[in-house]
Amino acid sequence: VTDEVGYLGPPGSFGEQAALHFSPKGRLLPFPSHTALVAAVRDGAVARGLAAVENSLEGAVSETLDALIQAESVSIAGELVLPVEQNLIAAPGTSLEDIDVVMSHPSALGQCRAFLERMLPQARLEAALSTAAAVMEAVGTPRAAGIGTRRAAELAGGAILAERVQDEALNKTRFLVLAGEDAAPTGTDKTSIAFTVAHDRPGTLIGVLQELSSRSINLTRIESRPARQDIGIYIFLIDFEGHRRDRSVAEALEVVEGKAHYFRLFGSYPRFVEAADKQ
Amino acid sequence: VTDEVGYLGPPGSFGEQAALHFSPKGRLLPFPSHTALVAAVRDGAVARGLAAVENSLEGAVSETLDALIQAESVSIAGELVLPVEQNLIAAPGTSLEDIDVVMSHPSALGQCRAFLERMLPQARLEAALSTAAAVMEAVGTPRAAGIGTRRAAELAGGAILAERVQDEALNKTRFLVLAGEDAAPTGTDKTSIAFTVAHDRPGTLIGVLQELSSRSINLTRIESRPARQDIGIYIFLIDFEGHRRDRSVAEALEVVEGKAHYFRLFGSYPRFVEAADKQ
Repeated sequence: VTDEVGYLGPPGSFGEQAALHFSPKGRLLPFPSHTALVAAVRDGAVARGLAAVENSLEGAVSETLDALIQAESVSIAGELVLPVEQNLIAAPGTSLEDIDVVMSHPSALGQCRAFLERMLPQARLEAALSTAAAVMEAVGTPRAAGIGTRRAAELAGGAILAERVQDEALNKTRFLVLAGEDAAPTGTDKTSIAFTVAHDRPGTLIGVLQELSSRSINLTRIESRPARQDIGIYIFLIDFEGHRRDRSVAEALEVVEGKAHYFRLFGSYPRFVEAADKQ
Repeated sequence: VTDEVGYLGPPGSFGEQAALHFSPKGRLLPFPSHTALVAAVRDGAVARGLAAVENSLEGAVSETLDALIQAESVSIAGELVLPVEQNLIAAPGTSLEDIDVVMSHPSALGQCRAFLERMLPQARLEAALSTAAAVMEAVGTPRAAGIGTRRAAELAGGAILAERVQDEALNKTRFLVLAGEDAAPTGTDKTSIAFTVAHDRPGTLIGVLQELSSRSINLTRIESRPARQDIGIYIFLIDFEGHRRDRSVAEALEVVEGKAHYFRLFGSYPRFVEAADKQ
């Protein structure tokens, strides 16, 4: 059995940072898309996969949700919330005044627009396929800088000219730890399910949610994805507190499964507690 | 006062098709993004704007939802559901065997992958910034075809070599008609609102939804967008049947506004009934 951890590559990406955070000494394997990553967990090509599922500015990562709905044997075994921090990176010895061109993925350039206008108004912007590729290229190019992760700087042998250059300080991504099975109870757990309800009848979604609220189960998230049938037909994905082995959760799951047309239990796993919340 | 109708351009896009469907003789104005389109409605630069809000395969159009949440004076005055149909388009006189290269926006090429592999296995694929730009270029290039709308073929003076070449027959997009005010009651209406509820307390979202179900008001859609504060804090966007001037809806809105931290009424508007449903 493999012990490898899959992530959305290339090396130096935020996905790799999450995988390193989860498994600092693990063997890590990059995948080209979230769909390929989820399939690798399903097929046992990796033991675990770290997949981004939502960002505090951008919202849900639809590709991950859709891939999870498709891959019936993949469970959620954990979660991880990490800050997204962009850095300005160049060859060692480069200073800010030297920079003529800034390279990165277009969305990373967008996230740093105010910084770039303030600090490098003369620099030309150049698009790259990923932040990691941009940093690798910039470190090898005179008078160029790349925007990317601290890890990308390490891999490329670059120096960080400026840290946390993204315009919005509070930018976090939540990752799921995907595996063949979910996790044992810890006392502070979450459970994730997906379901569809009868179309066009008042109160059907609400009827499901009431099975949670009537048992004092706290809903932490609700997302909908198209059921790929017609406008107005959705698969709902919900997260709530508690473990599927807790009596009240087990009861609620049984009733919800009975009410739903389609029902899928992704599993129960320890709730991520951020460092600041631990103090 | 302008009577122009704004849409997501360029001319020949699905946005223009929707705008033409809504206002066949109207003066239409393209915008480069949904954010710019919503801002143009807010500022009165156009009387109405047609903005894509969800697709039956891709799900919600986050940019439209976020722009609507930001633009406080913009209302929803209607909706429109249109099929997404891709066509293979080339210079008149071109036949399938002549085609060496197929140009389109990468997502349109992706939507037609099975067709292209079956019918044009030898053709090279070339990315363009929009389907409309691809069709315009392809019609002017020997041995090239573009994938795009019927309207793009008209604008470019091209011939349609094959219709409905997308792999999934059922692909529809719902558009909102945005305006300075919402619409009068017709008897078959919908109402859209956005709100946030107290964080981390069981039953708060459910409490809001119960105000609808207890009045037999049918929820037709629920979406969440990040409140841009932290992971786990959301703005909910819901659509339900009925007009804000209906007594039960007016009552529910009053109670929900009282329960919500943030509350926004986008307005009430006639529910779109598809041609097939009318028979």
